[in-house]
Amino acid sequence: MLNFNAHFPTRIHFGRGKIEDLGEEILSYGNKVLLVYGGGSIKRSGLYDQLLQVFQGNDINHIELSGVQPNPRISSVRQGVELCKQHQVHLVLAVGGGSTIDCAKIIAAGANYDGDAWDFFTRKAKIQHALPVGTVLTLAATGSEMSPNAVINNDDTKQKLGIGSSILIPRFSILDPEYSFTVPPEQTAAGTVDIMSHVFEQYFSPTPGTFIQNRLAEAMLKTCIHYGPLAMVQPDNYESRANLMWTGSLALNGLLGTGKRTDWATHGIEHEISALYDVTHGLGLAILTPYWMHYVLDEQTAPRLAEYARNIWGVDESDDIIAARTGIMKTARFFKSMNLAGSLKEIGVETERLAEMAEKATSRGPLGTFRKLEYQDVLNILQAAYDGTSLPLL
Amino acid sequence: MLNFNAHFPTRIHFGRGKIEDLGEEILSYGNKVLLVYGGGSIKRSGLYDQLLQVFQGNDINHIELSGVQPNPRISSVRQGVELCKQHQVHLVLAVGGGSTIDCAKIIAAGANYDGDAWDFFTRKAKIQHALPVGTVLTLAATGSEMSPNAVINNDDTKQKLGIGSSILIPRFSILDPEYSFTVPPEQTAAGTVDIMSHVFEQYFSPTPGTFIQNRLAEAMLKTCIHYGPLAMVQPDNYESRANLMWTGSLALNGLLGTGKRTDWATHGIEHEISALYDVTHGLGLAILTPYWMHYVLDEQTAPRLAEYARNIWGVDESDDIIAARTGIMKTARFFKSMNLAGSLKEIGVETERLAEMAEKATSRGPLGTFRKLEYQDVLNILQAAYDGTSLPLL
Repeated sequence: MLNFNAHFPTRIHFGRGKIEDLGEEILSYGNKVLLVYGGGSIKRSGLYDQLLQVFQGNDINHIELSGVQPNPRISSVRQGVELCKQHQVHLVLAVGGGSTIDCAKIIAAGANYDGDAWDFFTRKAKIQHALPVGTVLTLAATGSEMSPNAVINNDDTKQKLGIGSSILIPRFSILDPEYSFTVPPEQTAAGTVDIMSHVFEQYFSPTPGTFIQNRLAEAMLKTCIHYGPLAMVQPDNYESRANLMWTGSLALNGLLGTGKRTDWATHGIEHEISALYDVTHGLGLAILTPYWMHYVLDEQTAPRLAEYARNIWGVDESDDIIAARTGIMKTARFFKSMNLAGSLKEIGVETERLAEMAEKATSRGPLGTFRKLEYQDVLNILQAAYDGTSLPLL
Repeated sequence: MLNFNAHFPTRIHFGRGKIEDLGEEILSYGNKVLLVYGGGSIKRSGLYDQLLQVFQGNDINHIELSGVQPNPRISSVRQGVELCKQHQVHLVLAVGGGSTIDCAKIIAAGANYDGDAWDFFTRKAKIQHALPVGTVLTLAATGSEMSPNAVINNDDTKQKLGIGSSILIPRFSILDPEYSFTVPPEQTAAGTVDIMSHVFEQYFSPTPGTFIQNRLAEAMLKTCIHYGPLAMVQPDNYESRANLMWTGSLALNGLLGTGKRTDWATHGIEHEISALYDVTHGLGLAILTPYWMHYVLDEQTAPRLAEYARNIWGVDESDDIIAARTGIMKTARFFKSMNLAGSLKEIGVETERLAEMAEKATSRGPLGTFRKLEYQDVLNILQAAYDGTSLPLL
């Protein structure tokens, strides 16, 4: 186990009707709020009206930035920053899923910076200050509601880049599982894979001696596997939605990565896909993950992948390589059972752009720590995932 | 799953040499510290000298309260409160295990209260303010380093009472597993059981639908079972000490109890034993736990106890009652394998005082939620644990 610092500062308000805590939380930062949200879903669900009631009941002034898209754009961030500066906002309130929250985080940082917010992603500027961010979550997936990270797309440069800073960690998050009842099955599946992928990125590590972290990771994987399919067929099952929502937050709040090197290669590759194609992040991860696992499997990584197969999929096989392959196959089958696409070509990715993605993904150096991936490795993974048939299904 | 609020505000500095972060942490609260510790062990280990260096190197003034005992006394608290008031201390720094930290917490609360600190325990006064508390942990056991709780003994009234307040949660904790290398085997075993008991108290619950919490609890139990015995025979094995230390903190920081009713009956009973006999808390818990499990096992609780047996001990038995009994037996055997006593009479408890303990334990009402325990139930458990032979070992 490596040395680490850990801090989980977000105040969590979890459960039915927890919107009742929102007014008091906001007022501890001020009474002028930038409300950030996506499309009309929060209006259809009635959540928007609840928010207005909270604002009115607590004398909170609000300005709105709506229309934040999945794979949120730097253009939305710039609009939000402008509004914050113009209206001297005290808090940025994100209502939605990870895209909305990520957008809100960078708005909050940009509001306290004189230049353009894209500078944070090009490393031209470092985030020094940010307005406080609060969230009302409507989708179990990205974990952004407790995390220091944000990922933003730049349509001009065709880049999708991420940054992290403890300054960006939301001060509070309202997690009411009922808000996720309206998430359609395909989004529920993609969200479940997103959570699992966050776990994988931290579970598969070259650092030895992290027993507790690995067991905690397995707890979260088991929860996703148990409830993801259930939430797809019973969208208003509170137990499923609650377990997925709390797991999604815990999977990326820093707990699983304590004391170990983490990987994040699969995310690095996927970002290049969704930078070009506006693919749902979790869907891209579902396609890539089994191919990543298969590619990194070797004598050195086999014990860990075999441990995964045994502890998660109950694989009863003493040979590590065979156990690992079985676990990979079961992973792929599980994603398929949730009706997720199994190849990049199915989702419209073009074969002639794979090299470009591999190049961009490794432009800042090799990816991953569990096994280091250079340009050619990434290209090999993308090619295998493109075709979708090269995974040995035993 | 029930509604909940959660907040984990303690800043964790984990690993070898992390004492280097202490000066900066202290200075963010002020430069006058009350150093609270137990006996001479921190002097023998060299930790005391390290602390003096940190104080000197950062121009931090310190006053000392030493001699805090296991099962810490309200008399020590009163001394510490006096020192804080006299010297206008900015932060209370506990260096040691749970007893020292608990003592420091109530000192911190008492320093901001005009009456006697025991008033908090008799519910005569509520904790409204407290000085900030920081900790340097030397023993993996109580989880006090991230928790809102404190338990204090009153020799005059022969009471051992606990309280909890978010105001008491340590602001920072330095967790260097090397400081626990000198913990002797019997204390290591007792600490391991203490951690496991904290998990049990939250794992065994009447609340349905808490899948993620239950799997996280199992992750922690597996870690204790894996590393407790290893740390006893290899006291300077960093991996074992590190896994136990981080697990001990996570087991009582509020995470496992999110969204569910928790039990705490076993702790309630044990407190009456260690109020009268100054028994090591973890040892008392090791004796009581299997008898508590055995006593609460019925048709209603069997599925959960059977789940424990299957997931933790690999019991392969479809009948819940039989599976549960097997799991209970394996629990008792595990504690015995760590050379812990198996009966109350072995540790000097007198049979004629069991009724008194049962009465005190239930004086504020029945104990527990997994199964509610009245006076007679508690007495039955104490009598069975006294004898130590009535547990069916199949």
